[in-house]
Amino acid sequence: MDYEKDLLRVLGEITEIPNEEWEYLKQNLQWETIEKGHILLRNGELCEKVYFCASGLMRMYYHTTNGSEYNKSFISERGIFTSYSSLILSIPSHFSIQSMESSVIASFTGRTLNQLFRRHACWETVGRKLVEQLYIKKELKERQLLTHSAEERYRLFLKEYPDINRRIPQYHIAWYLGITPVSLSRLRSKVGLMDDSVID
Amino acid sequence: MDYEKDLLRVLGEITEIPNEEWEYLKQNLQWETIEKGHILLRNGELCEKVYFCASGLMRMYYHTTNGSEYNKSFISERGIFTSYSSLILSIPSHFSIQSMESSVIASFTGRTLNQLFRRHACWETVGRKLVEQLYIKKELKERQLLTHSAEERYRLFLKEYPDINRRIPQYHIAWYLGITPVSLSRLRSKVGLMDDSVID
Repeated sequence: MDYEKDLLRVLGEITEIPNEEWEYLKQNLQWETIEKGHILLRNGELCEKVYFCASGLMRMYYHTTNGSEYNKSFISERGIFTSYSSLILSIPSHFSIQSMESSVIASFTGRTLNQLFRRHACWETVGRKLVEQLYIKKELKERQLLTHSAEERYRLFLKEYPDINRRIPQYHIAWYLGITPVSLSRLRSKVGLMDDSVID
Repeated sequence: MDYEKDLLRVLGEITEIPNEEWEYLKQNLQWETIEKGHILLRNGELCEKVYFCASGLMRMYYHTTNGSEYNKSFISERGIFTSYSSLILSIPSHFSIQSMESSVIASFTGRTLNQLFRRHACWETVGRKLVEQLYIKKELKERQLLTHSAEERYRLFLKEYPDINRRIPQYHIAWYLGITPVSLSRLRSKVGLMDDSVID
């Protein structure tokens, strides 16, 4: 299956995965196609899986105390994702995960993850480098939130996610930047983007 | 040396460190005592080391565009710290690290870190679990920033850092919460804390 090859390629770029390790993981993968809008994990639930987005697009989002939502990140093709704190600490997830397009995803359980760590050192390397990437991404985003203006953050978003910008309604981008759709509309005019899709 | 034992204990709580691995790390550690106020790493410099705080207290902080500072985290006894993105990606650090008390710290270079990863799988486990802890901490802090009020965040800070709260000037806590010292003063009255040390 092509999607399997995609996953192997993502892992193989991190470190060499011996054949029998890949076979073991493959046997423990669960594949599913989910509809647009499907909620994979709800805020408050325990996350018990690691996911791979083979095709489609996901968002991870917080419910804020004022009843709004805040998109913490988007995951597209070939992204590996989970609710990390929930999976590792066995605590309820602080955020939800929802598909924004019809998507094909693979998953394996936290139990399989622990077995992988015990089986072969390559999985420790994969685990370390993946969480390293997550951490670095979060460190950069924290810095942006604290030291950059909304306009600067919007320009960075367009640079980081040129593709995703065209795939989702604009209010989801406002929810990612932590600004109102109206403010985003103003920013779009300022950076010279068409403004006909702000509240689509 | 007692401080060496502290470090071994911190590492040993993560995974078993074989004797010869510990000996190798020990030989590559550099110990130093630094004065209060010493800047270990400056925003814009390349971070080339991993640090262990044996005694004392450090802060990691951003310089915001309006000329202020924002304390991203505090590290006290037995904390391991570095400017992760800078160390891993070889890019200038986005933040500075400064001692807030006279401190004893140990450090080893990124080169030693890579040698450790190649020497023994225990270091992959240590690396993974440490960055996992960092990531989880950051995930929780991101959520607090986005979904909690300043008062809620202050109460969480007091719970998480009861000790540090008494060791540093109050304006540093305001800089951690992302509020002004005056707002912190109001919060302190509200949660029933003495207010005589707000601008000390």
